[in-house]
Amino acid sequence: MEKRISKIVDFLQEIDQLKHVKRRSHVSKEKRPETVAEHSWHLAMFAILLRKELQVDISLERTLELVAVHDLVEIYAGDTFAFDEEGHIDKQEREERAADKLFGILPPDLQAEMQALWEEFETGTSPEAVFARSLDKLQAVNQNICSQGYVWLHYDIPFEKVEARNQEGVAFDPAIRELFETLKDRAITQGYFPDKDLS
Amino acid sequence: MEKRISKIVDFLQEIDQLKHVKRRSHVSKEKRPETVAEHSWHLAMFAILLRKELQVDISLERTLELVAVHDLVEIYAGDTFAFDEEGHIDKQEREERAADKLFGILPPDLQAEMQALWEEFETGTSPEAVFARSLDKLQAVNQNICSQGYVWLHYDIPFEKVEARNQEGVAFDPAIRELFETLKDRAITQGYFPDKDLS
Repeated sequence: MEKRISKIVDFLQEIDQLKHVKRRSHVSKEKRPETVAEHSWHLAMFAILLRKELQVDISLERTLELVAVHDLVEIYAGDTFAFDEEGHIDKQEREERAADKLFGILPPDLQAEMQALWEEFETGTSPEAVFARSLDKLQAVNQNICSQGYVWLHYDIPFEKVEARNQEGVAFDPAIRELFETLKDRAITQGYFPDKDLS
Repeated sequence: MEKRISKIVDFLQEIDQLKHVKRRSHVSKEKRPETVAEHSWHLAMFAILLRKELQVDISLERTLELVAVHDLVEIYAGDTFAFDEEGHIDKQEREERAADKLFGILPPDLQAEMQALWEEFETGTSPEAVFARSLDKLQAVNQNICSQGYVWLHYDIPFEKVEARNQEGVAFDPAIRELFETLKDRAITQGYFPDKDLS
């Protein structure tokens, strides 16, 4: 067991670096980017508070595992900005290399578990993964409201692009649709999108 | 449902502030304190990777809920340094006031859920809560190794104080004991404690 625990410790120390990976989103009160570790925690809170609002029955355990693990590969592959089309060209290849290297620190059974969680999230092949993917995008919308529209205004992202990114979630469950509409109304009322003609 | 979702959004926006609450621990590569949101995410990874090493059977779902929620009250009550005896005198009162205010943003059923999770963690009244409390302390030990003994050396915390804080976990399960011993060996080998005579 000692060797297993030692490898788990190696991994837990390596992933401390998720606290160094920066997102484009800013936190609410400090003028600084949110870290991916902070984003991942926030997603857990979204999941805990929303799962009972869903019409579909999902495993909260699986959802919480998915959100904790979903961005770990960014430790080596970096965060790819949602609206950066060029960055997405080699995103998959970069992230697959990162997964091999990072999860390979663990004993084989745990490596396989981490790999399976990451792939399930990426491919959206379970209701939990679709729920987690929806929250990943809604959390970003929420974060831009927390920071007075920072990303949308700074990078000139029109509302229709944000709406397109959230279609998977909106189609998944009425509660996700309701959440998106609530966030959209708040953002539009506050003038957080660069669009001239939203009302 | 709209009103429920709106209250949930209010709460999810308010708790963004957990990204502003600083711990004493430093992150591995930047000379800056870890945020409580980052700490909370790291705990989830500890739980996911260690739960199968335990001899006792625990609910991972409950553990992950506990670790996501356990420090939320610090948004209003602040982080109380583990080794600050004076700060602990009014800690409970400060945190109870914070819980009333923060969880009160939510609809009553969700408020009760958050309150129950927080109290379960604080009182350690379930195996999941004892597991989560153990991880909370072990993550701090791990964090000080990630930052070359920062807190122990900077605040002159001898090893015996660290050992005393981790007794609940060490007594809880052999895997937690093994994890603590592994971390202890690494810290002592690297000279991360201020003690002169550890070997």
